[in-house]
Amino acid sequence: MADKPEKMKARLPRGFADRSAEDIRAVDKMMATIRGVYELYGFEPVEQPLIEYTDALGKFLPDQDRPNEGVFSFQDDDEQWLSLRYDLTAPTARFVAENYDRLPKPYRSYRSGWVFRNEKPGPGRFRQFMQFDADTIGTPGVAADAEMAMMMADVMEALGIARGDYVIRVNNRKVLDGVLEAIGLGGDDNAGRRLIVLRAIDKLDKVGPDGVRALLGKGRLDESGDFTKGAGLDDAQADRVLLLTAPSTGDLTDTLVKMRAAVSGSERGAEGVQELQDIGAMIAAAGYEDGRVKIDPSIVRGLEYYTGPVYEAELLAEIPNDEGKIVRFGSVGGGGRYDGLISRFRGEPVPATGFSIGVSRLMTALKNLGKLDMSDIVQPVVVLVMDRDTESLGRYQKMVSQLRQAGIRAELYLGGAGMKAQLKYADRRGSPVAVIQGSSERDAGEVQLKDLIEGARQAAAIADHAEYKEARPGQVTVPEADLVAEVKKILAAQAADRQ
Amino acid sequence: MADKPEKMKARLPRGFADRSAEDIRAVDKMMATIRGVYELYGFEPVEQPLIEYTDALGKFLPDQDRPNEGVFSFQDDDEQWLSLRYDLTAPTARFVAENYDRLPKPYRSYRSGWVFRNEKPGPGRFRQFMQFDADTIGTPGVAADAEMAMMMADVMEALGIARGDYVIRVNNRKVLDGVLEAIGLGGDDNAGRRLIVLRAIDKLDKVGPDGVRALLGKGRLDESGDFTKGAGLDDAQADRVLLLTAPSTGDLTDTLVKMRAAVSGSERGAEGVQELQDIGAMIAAAGYEDGRVKIDPSIVRGLEYYTGPVYEAELLAEIPNDEGKIVRFGSVGGGGRYDGLISRFRGEPVPATGFSIGVSRLMTALKNLGKLDMSDIVQPVVVLVMDRDTESLGRYQKMVSQLRQAGIRAELYLGGAGMKAQLKYADRRGSPVAVIQGSSERDAGEVQLKDLIEGARQAAAIADHAEYKEARPGQVTVPEADLVAEVKKILAAQAADRQ
Repeated sequence: MADKPEKMKARLPRGFADRSAEDIRAVDKMMATIRGVYELYGFEPVEQPLIEYTDALGKFLPDQDRPNEGVFSFQDDDEQWLSLRYDLTAPTARFVAENYDRLPKPYRSYRSGWVFRNEKPGPGRFRQFMQFDADTIGTPGVAADAEMAMMMADVMEALGIARGDYVIRVNNRKVLDGVLEAIGLGGDDNAGRRLIVLRAIDKLDKVGPDGVRALLGKGRLDESGDFTKGAGLDDAQADRVLLLTAPSTGDLTDTLVKMRAAVSGSERGAEGVQELQDIGAMIAAAGYEDGRVKIDPSIVRGLEYYTGPVYEAELLAEIPNDEGKIVRFGSVGGGGRYDGLISRFRGEPVPATGFSIGVSRLMTALKNLGKLDMSDIVQPVVVLVMDRDTESLGRYQKMVSQLRQAGIRAELYLGGAGMKAQLKYADRRGSPVAVIQGSSERDAGEVQLKDLIEGARQAAAIADHAEYKEARPGQVTVPEADLVAEVKKILAAQAADRQ
Repeated sequence: MADKPEKMKARLPRGFADRSAEDIRAVDKMMATIRGVYELYGFEPVEQPLIEYTDALGKFLPDQDRPNEGVFSFQDDDEQWLSLRYDLTAPTARFVAENYDRLPKPYRSYRSGWVFRNEKPGPGRFRQFMQFDADTIGTPGVAADAEMAMMMADVMEALGIARGDYVIRVNNRKVLDGVLEAIGLGGDDNAGRRLIVLRAIDKLDKVGPDGVRALLGKGRLDESGDFTKGAGLDDAQADRVLLLTAPSTGDLTDTLVKMRAAVSGSERGAEGVQELQDIGAMIAAAGYEDGRVKIDPSIVRGLEYYTGPVYEAELLAEIPNDEGKIVRFGSVGGGGRYDGLISRFRGEPVPATGFSIGVSRLMTALKNLGKLDMSDIVQPVVVLVMDRDTESLGRYQKMVSQLRQAGIRAELYLGGAGMKAQLKYADRRGSPVAVIQGSSERDAGEVQLKDLIEGARQAAAIADHAEYKEARPGQVTVPEADLVAEVKKILAAQAADRQ
């Protein structure tokens, strides 16, 4: 043991992030809007803890090549394995199974929270991130799936995303399974090849139709020279799969005809197409077939536990991505029917469907779309400390209290610095007003108010040699008794400027 | 590998809890109020991830007997140890150390979130719970500590806790250390005995002054026959410690005189008393010496990292505890100065002070005090499904949409049950109104509205053979075009009833 402790390095573990005030406030505002939609639809909040028994979570992560990885796990005192949840669906399934008898059926619920993936982090790829889910449990009817898709559309609109800038795409896992069955890829033995086919379809956006065909066949050599082994389908097999990825004419009848051809010979596939037809009818009846919700057979959702309809919310708007490149933003959430997850516990069928919004991703999109107006956040007024005797401190403290009592964010400067540094502090805080009372002001029963927003504008204009018309005086001296009223005036003028 | 998967048991790990809609809504409401106070004081939100490097968290849990326990830990791919945070202070210290240069100083911030303790769970003792903290970092002046204590008082008042039903007690770790030093218990060798003394003081509420004296001396035999070994102080030593726990006259000057006597001979102790005197003066100047904030030398906060003033928010109200017994509720939060936590990383002094509110505990208190009025939550209107053809479903869906567009929570019944079961479902959901349209109503262009709150009242009266005056008709039939207006009328009547 060393006598003197070594200085430790302060560092975040890889793949984790601190959240700024701006991020927290923007997410809170966005989530309040989403919650409003879920509530309107009659959903109730319910939340599970972040830790569950590992076996209760199951192994449903996309990466089945490393079945024991992907989750953070540790052993309890009694040697049972615990894990941090990797999504909100598996814990919800455990909760519903455990409390099934006392819950209303169908059970509509929503929840938000952190989930964890023990994966290699990368740009925009975190090991802790937030999801915001809604689920309807206990009804097999696809009316619940149709409602999910429409609710996702309503969420997008509530967030201010213009109609046409997003689409909710709906597909059905049974259709994909049906095609695979029809081309002889059914059964446990073909699980590996099925996965390659699904991944190939999922890459349509990135590699185009020819790329998908190559991945379905012998394999594909990409620009960097890397070769990806294909699923080994022959041309006839590949053609049937490619029917699913053909560009849509936008006409539901056409799409259904194509899908029926693709699944021909598979009962499960036919069932899937029929369900999509029903969903299409419900969406049309509710008026959401205007481009808000679309049946699209090319959608693949990664999670293994889906058993029926799957849906995905895609942003069509072309906005800068994390690297500043203008791209179609893509998926901000999705979900599907998971009829098997709860039955694992209950030993009886408990149908369920739900979706999940990737909170950080959606927030990035909204920020880039200019839909996250946070200009109503006003930073605190700073009361400077000019004299440090107890009586003066008491007087400053009283000013701060008066401002707070009027609902104005305010703080006493608590550091040890002089006036110049205190003003710099106020500036760094983005403070709108600094309140100053030195001995001369005190003797006159006055306070000086510095309009720091106007001051910054003046300073910028002078630095730019720009012509400058003073909108307001940069500082005023007012009677101490008028402190609150005069600060309010400045804040009102600043608010008017922002508009 | 078995062919047929075994049915799994759905169960929560010990010490973890699911959260109900009621709990989530109540906590959200309470936290919004607390956040409002923090914001008014000029604090900014900032949040750290739930996982940190184990060494960055340090070992500051009260139970030093098991230094490696208390936290959930696991190894990363690169073999470094990670842990789930056990409080919000240690991650804040890491964050501030890592971003020190770009942060305004003093740095006022607040955060809420889940923390984890890998301890034996018990009644009301969870392994995951929520804290809500505020911290001021970068100022050594006790004005920051005084402000913390006053802000805690403001939080209590904002939550509707009556003046006199709570008190914020302030002490100073330096005073405790000073007394221990003065009676010869300074130095590393006496760490164990110091801990026994601190624990003895902390038990004043439970064992009374004689009990504390026994624990300071040879030890104490409790009613169950268990013997707790004491700190082995002689009478003169114990007398000095007991000065700290003597009942207060409520007069600050008296308290300070007693404390000075207790610490006499210790420079550190004298410094601590002086700081408390300064805090007392600031509190008096701000008008908080009216019982809201009190200097109290008997307060001990468990965490090892405190270096100066410590404070505790105590509810004086006598309310039922978890077991229904009427007791003085006790601590709902506290904090103190932790000047060493950030310096561990920086190698330079970075003074800091902050407090933490135990969210669940405070919520339990508010619930028992009747301060959590959630009667403004209105459950969704349920539109029953009487006919299942696509056209009828479309019509029901449209009714739901109209209600939602008017801002009324509404849902289409999505299960497969008949009318009676659907009404039972609506009842279980706490639904205020059921909307019914069978073929005869449809032909007449009408809908039937069942006032489920009034209906339940009537049913209860009949069951009790009570005399009953119908406040409203239990159901009405109205033109379909008036659906929204008529539902609004019923909701308004129900709201008026609740008041």
